[in-house]
Formats: sequence, C-alpha cells, structure tokens
Amino acid sequence: MNQSLNLTMLTDFYEITMANGYFETDMANDIAYFDMFFRKIPDGGGFAIMAGLEQVIDYLENLSFSDKDIEYLRGKGMFSEAFLKYLKGFKFECDVWAIPEGTPIFPGEPLITVRGPLMQAQFVETMILLLVNHQSLIATKANRIVRSAKGRSVMEFGTRRAHGASAAVLGSRAAYIGGCMGTACAISERDYGILALGTMAHSWVQTFDDEYQSFKKYAEIYPDNCVLLVDTYNVLKSGVPNAIKVFQEKKPVKMGIRIDSGDVTYLTKKARAMLDEAGLRDCSIVVSNSMDEYIIRDVILEGACIDSFGVGERLITSKSEPVFGGVYKLVALEKKGKMIPKIKISENIEKITNPGFKEVYRLFDKDTNKVVADVITLNGEEAPGGDCYEIFDPQAVWKRKKIVNFYAKNLLVPIFEKGKCIYDKPSIDEIKDYCQEQIRTLWDELLRFENPQIYYVDLSHDLWEMKHKLIEEYQHI
Amino acid sequence: MNQSLNLTMLTDFYEITMANGYFETDMANDIAYFDMFFRKIPDGGGFAIMAGLEQVIDYLENLSFSDKDIEYLRGKGMFSEAFLKYLKGFKFECDVWAIPEGTPIFPGEPLITVRGPLMQAQFVETMILLLVNHQSLIATKANRIVRSAKGRSVMEFGTRRAHGASAAVLGSRAAYIGGCMGTACAISERDYGILALGTMAHSWVQTFDDEYQSFKKYAEIYPDNCVLLVDTYNVLKSGVPNAIKVFQEKKPVKMGIRIDSGDVTYLTKKARAMLDEAGLRDCSIVVSNSMDEYIIRDVILEGACIDSFGVGERLITSKSEPVFGGVYKLVALEKKGKMIPKIKISENIEKITNPGFKEVYRLFDKDTNKVVADVITLNGEEAPGGDCYEIFDPQAVWKRKKIVNFYAKNLLVPIFEKGKCIYDKPSIDEIKDYCQEQIRTLWDELLRFENPQIYYVDLSHDLWEMKHKLIEEYQHI
Repeated sequence: MNQSLNLTMLTDFYEITMANGYFETDMANDIAYFDMFFRKIPDGGGFAIMAGLEQVIDYLENLSFSDKDIEYLRGKGMFSEAFLKYLKGFKFECDVWAIPEGTPIFPGEPLITVRGPLMQAQFVETMILLLVNHQSLIATKANRIVRSAKGRSVMEFGTRRAHGASAAVLGSRAAYIGGCMGTACAISERDYGILALGTMAHSWVQTFDDEYQSFKKYAEIYPDNCVLLVDTYNVLKSGVPNAIKVFQEKKPVKMGIRIDSGDVTYLTKKARAMLDEAGLRDCSIVVSNSMDEYIIRDVILEGACIDSFGVGERLITSKSEPVFGGVYKLVALEKKGKMIPKIKISENIEKITNPGFKEVYRLFDKDTNKVVADVITLNGEEAPGGDCYEIFDPQAVWKRKKIVNFYAKNLLVPIFEKGKCIYDKPSIDEIKDYCQEQIRTLWDELLRFENPQIYYVDLSHDLWEMKHKLIEEYQHI
Repeated sequence: MNQSLNLTMLTDFYEITMANGYFETDMANDIAYFDMFFRKIPDGGGFAIMAGLEQVIDYLENLSFSDKDIEYLRGKGMFSEAFLKYLKGFKFECDVWAIPEGTPIFPGEPLITVRGPLMQAQFVETMILLLVNHQSLIATKANRIVRSAKGRSVMEFGTRRAHGASAAVLGSRAAYIGGCMGTACAISERDYGILALGTMAHSWVQTFDDEYQSFKKYAEIYPDNCVLLVDTYNVLKSGVPNAIKVFQEKKPVKMGIRIDSGDVTYLTKKARAMLDEAGLRDCSIVVSNSMDEYIIRDVILEGACIDSFGVGERLITSKSEPVFGGVYKLVALEKKGKMIPKIKISENIEKITNPGFKEVYRLFDKDTNKVVADVITLNGEEAPGGDCYEIFDPQAVWKRKKIVNFYAKNLLVPIFEKGKCIYDKPSIDEIKDYCQEQIRTLWDELLRFENPQIYYVDLSHDLWEMKHKLIEEYQHI
C-alpha cells in the first residue's frame, strides 16, 4: 500500500549526513557488508518469525531521490551541489541476501546481509530495520496466539488500535504469515489477498427498535453467513435467545454468534448449551474481547466453548512487548580487494557483533527432519556436512556436541545481485504454509510461551577465531 | 504522507457489511450521531493529549470509493449492484466536531462527534479511531517524556522500531505536538516541517582506520554542528579524549558528544568533567540509550550531566502501554425529526456510554486561568456560567462542588459542515505551542507520572438524568 510512494526520505537523517561524509571523503564506493540481526526474542519466546522481506524488496526496487527530496536536502544548507547531483543519479547496486519470510529465526543470525558501495549499503539501514522489525514482531506474536488457540481459527481484528495505516495493513499481512486465518481489514484483502471478514458492531443492533429486529434484518440480508453480535444488551437473557429465534426462523447456511465482553468461559459454556438445546450444534461461537495467547490458553483450559477468536489490540501492537529490536551493523569492508572484518565491541558480551561476511546453516536430523542446531559460518567456508560435525556454544566453548546423521540448509538466499532483484517472491499463502511447515521442524520445547529451551546458534570454528582475535585487538584501548 | 492515497478500504470489513445493511433496510440516510472517546489514560497518567485530527480531516476530505474498491467489493459476492452503484456516488456529507489537537483530554469526553447519514457516520469509525488512537498515544507518551527531561530537549529517534512507515512519520508528528524538539526522521521534516537532525552511526566510526580519524573527518565536513558518537570503542578511554582532541583542533561552531550505551549517569558525569577540564564547557552531551520518562527522571535525580535526550523505541511504540483505547459509539438517532438518545449498557459501570448529542466545557478559574473541571452537557443546554455553578461526580452524585469565579470554554469546535471542511487547520507549531500553553493550565497534581490526582469530568444535570433514565429502561431485559 505504501509502496507506490517514494519512501527514500523515510530514513534517519544520519544516513544522509553519513552518505555525504562518505561522498566527501571519497569512500562512498568502498565495498561494505552490513548485517541485520536481532538480539532477543519478544515475550521470552523460543523463536521469532522472519517477515517483511517483500516490503524491503519493494523499497529497494523503488529507491531513488526525487526532485522533492533533493529540494528538501538543499534547503538544509549542509550539502554540496556535487553531493546532491550524485543523489539525483543514485541507483541501488548492492547484493542482498536474506532469510525468507516465514522462517523461524534466532538471535544473532544475519537475517539480511547487504554488500555494496558503502554509502548505499549504509543508507538502506533505517527502512530495512523498520520493515523487518515491524512485521517480524507481529508475525511472531500472531504465531504465539495462533498456537495457543490449538487449532481454533484466529482472526486479526486490530485495525483501529494499530499505530497508523501501514501498521494496520502490513500488520495484518504479518499476522497472516504467523498463522491467522484472516483479518477484519478490507484493504489487506484488496491489496494482499488476505481473507477479510466482518459482520456487525453494537451500533447495528442499537439502530433498530429491538435486538431481535436487528438480527432478523441481518439474517435476511446475509443468509449465507450470519454471525450475530449478542452482547449489546445481555448475552444470555437477550442476545442468545434472540439469535436462536432468528436462526430457527431464517435458517442461514452458516451461522454464528460473537461475544465481545464479559467472562468468556462462563458465557460461552452457557451459550453453547443454549444453542445445542435449540438444535443449533452447527452454530459457531466467536469471542473477541482483549484476547492474547495467555488468556486464550487459560479459557481453553477452563473448557470455554469457542470456535474462533478475534484478536485485536494485543496482537496488532504486540502489546506485551511492542519492540522487535533488530539492528543493522557493519561487519566488513573491502579495501584494495582485501576483506577487513569489522566488529562492534560492547561491555555486554551478547552485544558484541559477529564480524565478517557470513552464512547461516540450519542442521536437520535426517530421520526426523527436526532441527538440531544453527551454525553461522564465514562465507567461503565449507558448509557443515559429513558424518560428524562438532558444534560448540560460543559463550561457553567447553560445551560441545557432535552431530551425526544430519543435513544442512543454507538459510540466506540471494535477493538482489548488483541492485537487481533475482528473487522469485513467493505468494502470501506460500509464505504462510512455509512458516507452518518450518515450525513443525522445531523442538516441542521451543514452543513453550514461557522459559522455552534455548536453541543452539553456534559459530563455526573459523568465525569464532576471527571474532576473538578482533576482540583481543580492542583489549588495549 | 499516506494522505495522497485513497484509504477508503482501510476499514474494518463490518463497516461495509453494515453499510450495505443500512442501504438494504432503507436506513442509510437516517441521521445518526457517533462519539469518539477513550476510557483510560495510558500509563496511569493524569491526562492525555488529543492528536491526529489533521489526518482525520485529510481522510474525510478524500473519502470516496474508487473503481478498484468497487471491483474488490463486487468480488466478495455479497453486495448488490445497487449498493455498489450507491458507493460509487458516495459523497461525505456529515457534520463533524472535534477537540483541537494539542488539547489535554480526559476519559469519557467526546473527542470527535460525527452527525450525518447513518451509513456515512458509521463508515468512518475505523479510520477515525486508527488515526486519533495512534497519534494521541504518542503525543501523550512524548509529553510525559518531555516533562521528565525538565527543560532539556528531547528528540524522537524511533523510526527503525516504529510499526511501519506511517507509525514512524505520524509518530514523529505526534511526538512533536507532545513537546519533542525534533526527530531523526527526514521525511517528517520534508512533509510536516518537523526539525530533523542526525549525525553518525557507529558504522561511521568503524569505517575509518581509527576513531580519531573518523571524528576529524566529520568535523571537517560539518564544522557548524559537530556531534560525535563516542561509544564505539570505549567512551572514557577513547571516545571522549578523541572528541576533545578534534574539538580543540577543528573548533566547530557547535559541538556535542553522543553516548548510546553504558551507564548514563556515570559516563556523563565523567565526560562532563573531562570536557570542562579541556575548556569545552559549550560542548553538549546527548544520550540515547533506551530512554523513557522513568529513566530520564532517575538519571537527572542522580545528577547525570545531560543536555539533550534522543528517545527511540520506548517513545515511538509507547512501549509501556502501546494501546490508546479510543472507541466510537452511537449516541443518538433522529427519527422523524425527533432525537432519540442511544446508550450502550455494560456490566462495568465505566463502560456505559454517555447518550445524546453533547458539548464539552472546560471551566477555568478567572484569577489563575487554571482548570477547575470539565462538564459534559447536552447540546442545546445553556453553557455553564453565572456566579455559581454546581458540579457533581457522576459516579458518586453526593460529591458536589460549587464553582465560582470561573469562565467556560467549549472544547468541541466545528470541523465539517455537511461534508465540507470549515476548520482553519493550525500549523504544527501552533498546535505544539497550544499544547504547551494548555498544559500550563492544568493542576500540578495532574502532572505526576504515577497516581496523579483524578481530574473532574462531570455530567450536566440534564445529561445525568437522561443517562439514568435510559439505564433504567434496560434494567428489565
């Protein structure tokens, strides 16, 4: 939706001051490597889900400086005409690799690697982070919620509480990738092919003289799929009895009731009994009141009779943890054809970056097809393989494990080659199916909502050596 | 930014099913009144700040169903050709009143009232909520953060963690209304006139052979305003000494250092001493590491030496409470020229709506110009005035208070008349100044971050009577 607009200026201003700096120092065309990665899984979960790549591709394909952009920058009075002319002729020429959308991802892994002229590879930082942080956050949260529903369908209902238009639309896209069966947001269906559904608000019921009339009219207009909102006045005394009366009179093809307030467990059990008593076993029950994975888990454990959940604000804002902390870091420079790995040091050991141009391999057990570990290697190293491969914990190198009977999959796939997109973008349903399929390869212990097992993301021996050599070099500052 | 696009389909699908329902039942042109209001101030604060109205106006002025929209709806197979033809000819004809942006607002007050054909007044629900919820959330959070900084400047730095493009751009607009002095987001300056600033990332420092070289080059390129990021390697051993050396050699007009990691209090005290020692008392110190109102308050109390804060993810996502729960409710219908007030009942007393077409008055003390209370009245009632006006707590009617020596201000101003915008939109700086000015009228006890005094929002006697009569009517369901 946003993609038809030129979003080149949707960038942190420092990308522009640095771009000019590289231009002025004749470094703009030095070759640099940047990695996007994240450090912490939201909500203390066992894995996150990659999303937002399609929008990154759209952004990069449309990256150019319009006359309006140039005028704006000229007005800042900080940049030379030579630099502005250079921007006018800007053409994205980088190579990009990325982990496909829908893939379970773990902290420290390069999700996107950009290689190209320093000025360009730096400039795209803000939007890559914005797009991938946002959609990965929502896909990850949606997947938690969908898993909590244990096979019951989950609809994304949060448009009105989203942080602006693109949060609503791309949020529902990400929620669909994470496993939601649809959305309330019409434009997401028009533009992204995500099933949109919706029936009535309380105001529909209130505009009629009584609730029964409002239901009857609705059933007459929508005989194929008639979901009635039963909590405008009183769910059990008024809403459900009126719904039953209308369903019995009008016999819609599909029928359901929606409850949007009150105690979900109590009300759905009572409502189910009343519907069954009336012979309406086919009538489904939808609930939609401040749901998230914790409440859904609990009401299901309590025996609530729910067929489908509408999840709003707690999904579309990822309320319990609304930040996906992806970062974008310089990992190498090429000087005179020689690769110079770069590291960012921190007093916090987890914040020290992995230097160099890298690959990410996921190792699967040959018999079960379940994941065994991920290994980050240097590009050009031999891929993990053979009969036996030893991995070790990079924070505790005495923790070693020999892996046998496995195969390795290279997670980073080529997306752009010299600025040209060479990736065959999957459809949204392909991404969604792939996500479900990949989640089935995870250990059950990774699926817990709290205190899951921590997945192995190890470094190859060569990468570990390089990293520790660079850390040593900074010891004496 | 989004406003050049047709966002008509950015709506909950139920707005369309209801629109068709009203069309099919010949109710589409009945006159309805809807209120947007919110129930709870985020973060337990004492007040919220209204924002997003300008984008609501843009949305309503551009509201029409494109051929693409009609095609999409036709494809759903749910709607008659007569209805689709009606949509094609759709023209927004409602009256709209709203509380201006930048105004401190309180739970239960109509922020926006829409009066017009039922189908139209209902249809605009989703986008009004989306836009006002988002920007009011961020303006409110920004204002808390700005107040915590006690006169030090606060920059909005959160683009990369925003929930999509419009969350970044309109989020920085809202943050500016709330009191931020600028943003890192370039497009917000280009399109909304919000000062954008930014200097360098760690990668700038890393691309040079050493930190000193990177600072020196930067100072040469930007002699007017040279803010150096000093925490790439080691703040006190390397960053600050190199910055001092460069400042002494290059003598930039304005100079500053930015610290983005580590203990802010410790590092800024040490850095300040080193800078002062070097005669660089004019050098400012900017910090930008996971700041919010609580941390800023604490580090200032600890004596941290900070001139300016860059606030990222905790502002742009309102991390501590990322949902502004505004709702949009039917409050009246006109049938045969007669006004029929409507109420939404709930077991939770605070969730019961205020019926009828209403006004909101803010009462100010004539001597101090400080607020006294807000009073919601029925439209057409006499405005609060005279020598003595008695207010009462609508939840506890025995709590009464006589107000003397006051004047009343009508907060809801006309925005649209029969679909035409009649509002003279203020500039962003006018909105920001108005916000600051209005906050100065609030009691100091409302400004506390935790457990503030609860402001009086009372109902007029006539409104209270109407509300309780309607509640009575539902007692027997």
